[in-house]
Amino acid sequence: MTTATPGSTATALAPVRPIVTGAPALPRRIYNFSAGPAAIPEAVLLQAREDLWSIFDTGIGIMEHSHRGKAFTRVIEEAEADCRAIGSVSDDYAVLFLQGGATTQFATIPMNFLPTGGTADYPDTGVWTTKAIKEAKKFGAVNVAFEGKKHNYDHVPAASELTLTPDAAYLHYCSNNTIFGTRYHTPPATGAPLIADMSSEIFSRPVDISAHALVYAGAQKNLGPSGTTLVIIRKDFMATGAADLPSMFDYRKHADAGSCLNTPPTFGIYIMGRIFKWILEQGGLAALEKRNNAKAKLVYDAIDSSGGFYRGVSRPECRSVMNVSFRTPSAELDARFVEESKKHDMDGLKGHRDAGGIRASIYNAFPHKGCEVLAQFMKDFAARNG
Amino acid sequence: MTTATPGSTATALAPVRPIVTGAPALPRRIYNFSAGPAAIPEAVLLQAREDLWSIFDTGIGIMEHSHRGKAFTRVIEEAEADCRAIGSVSDDYAVLFLQGGATTQFATIPMNFLPTGGTADYPDTGVWTTKAIKEAKKFGAVNVAFEGKKHNYDHVPAASELTLTPDAAYLHYCSNNTIFGTRYHTPPATGAPLIADMSSEIFSRPVDISAHALVYAGAQKNLGPSGTTLVIIRKDFMATGAADLPSMFDYRKHADAGSCLNTPPTFGIYIMGRIFKWILEQGGLAALEKRNNAKAKLVYDAIDSSGGFYRGVSRPECRSVMNVSFRTPSAELDARFVEESKKHDMDGLKGHRDAGGIRASIYNAFPHKGCEVLAQFMKDFAARNG
Repeated sequence: MTTATPGSTATALAPVRPIVTGAPALPRRIYNFSAGPAAIPEAVLLQAREDLWSIFDTGIGIMEHSHRGKAFTRVIEEAEADCRAIGSVSDDYAVLFLQGGATTQFATIPMNFLPTGGTADYPDTGVWTTKAIKEAKKFGAVNVAFEGKKHNYDHVPAASELTLTPDAAYLHYCSNNTIFGTRYHTPPATGAPLIADMSSEIFSRPVDISAHALVYAGAQKNLGPSGTTLVIIRKDFMATGAADLPSMFDYRKHADAGSCLNTPPTFGIYIMGRIFKWILEQGGLAALEKRNNAKAKLVYDAIDSSGGFYRGVSRPECRSVMNVSFRTPSAELDARFVEESKKHDMDGLKGHRDAGGIRASIYNAFPHKGCEVLAQFMKDFAARNG
Repeated sequence: MTTATPGSTATALAPVRPIVTGAPALPRRIYNFSAGPAAIPEAVLLQAREDLWSIFDTGIGIMEHSHRGKAFTRVIEEAEADCRAIGSVSDDYAVLFLQGGATTQFATIPMNFLPTGGTADYPDTGVWTTKAIKEAKKFGAVNVAFEGKKHNYDHVPAASELTLTPDAAYLHYCSNNTIFGTRYHTPPATGAPLIADMSSEIFSRPVDISAHALVYAGAQKNLGPSGTTLVIIRKDFMATGAADLPSMFDYRKHADAGSCLNTPPTFGIYIMGRIFKWILEQGGLAALEKRNNAKAKLVYDAIDSSGGFYRGVSRPECRSVMNVSFRTPSAELDARFVEESKKHDMDGLKGHRDAGGIRASIYNAFPHKGCEVLAQFMKDFAARNG
């Protein structure tokens, strides 16, 4: 059993303001700015605590139910239905719950859809697309349709900056770049089938699934625990996948088996399903977008009103609403900022090792109050160190 | 929040005997004979309930911690150390926590280790080896070293029944066959590198890792939730893997990255780690083997003393200690047995669709008391229907 005491503090100093958890008997929680795995709605955690022991009054916990049994069948069917409702996903698409994270998709996408003699377009907008390009080149020809590195990845390409391949097999892009904090307002314009890595922003704003051939997302930012990958794929595109693939890398086989080709990650799918229900309870994607915009505005306003003390990493027109990356005047102050923030019940603000500086990841489940706390701390820190 | 009431019953009828959960305020639990996902030690579930909300007094739940942060680093390092202690795994081996289940290993093993012109030996002892053979044939030449189907999979091969390939790239076997309830007492004798699918029996008895080049197991039977795969691989064998593989299918890359090549299934690894600690607390593999043998004996004795009413599926000399598969005199009685068992707080006894009949999966975490309840029910049922 845990030794945590109700009301115990994670640090020795008092928090900026008291935290209300909704469950006074449980230990106090802090503001978790982690880029992923990341904060999960507390209502989902409280439900999961119950269902770990016994779900649907079965006397068996959710992790212990057969993936072929009634309890889990209900969980996965509701998860798919709720996902379709949230994203307005039509029956032209299969909704798949897979394993292996986005990095596995980096391989299985070209394995399926990059034929011999074909070329796929990949605008490079950061670490994750660079990795995707590296994996795709093991299977066929890749056209790097935009070289973001030349711009320190400070923006995503305008239409005029894209060099597209005529008759490309597909175009793959990353809709939100976690590390440098940039995002596309609208998908890149192309006539090719459009494939999006939406790991770090899926279901944080309305999304036009119908514009895409395939959308995928590792769960650990907006959809739950790491180890589960959501794939939404247009059935007629899926049908064009390569033949004779290993079963686990063949989207058709997963679709035919209702994501139970082998034993799926049942607990991860359960948590994702609870998060889908939470999203619906919040009012869906339009309501979440409004809330997320307001959260991000608090932090960007603190940057823009700092008289140059803080500098944003991305160009203002490409600013991510999920990941706010910024720097103080020096690496020393960046480090001091991160250390001091921990004394005020904040964690996870250190920037990615490839970008340095400070990063606040404020996904769907991150509370508005936490952004207020951060913005106030930023003002105080700048006043003390500016 | 759950609507389950403390003390509520899963069925309308009284149980054979009261169940003690160790946590009276929580709903009552039943005996879960599921083949996987399967029962998890209640001590682990109780701990997980706490750590979901806040682990190590961090104010952040285990699912929400970065895989690069201190909390999860402690979790995965302890998991590896405890795994090595349990299995006496030397530094000649890498311990990897992967995704995709055994079915992904069915593909990545030949992808890495079945070279052009080589042949791998696969004794076929049931559904899972049949699947493994099908996947391996997509990569190269497979010698089916034993055709268990000719014997209705009622036993695993004696040394004299194996047809081995000289200089085979490796021999792949399944040490315990979940569906038909057979197991190897000792690994098949071969001069080739030995690869074992131990999904359904790993760490249920002492295991000689040093006899193997690679051992793997999906977690959902003896090691925790589905979605995490344990791989123990000899480093000099790992080094012989094919070049230029997609990163996620290259064991070396996972080993170099300490299983954090991409975001690993952090919650699954956490649960596996807690189960490793539980195994150590129980006294390790010798103690578990003794306990598991006693549990299985209760059920096999009920079969053998039924005067022929129950018939075991496997030959007595190959009987699995984890999965006890048997039949009544008719399919109708099999179905009645399963239905009636549910009224006595038992679930998951229906046999696999490929084998029919009845199957009791009694992995490490399944309680001795549950086997007593089943054995008593078997006697009562035979008396009423014999």
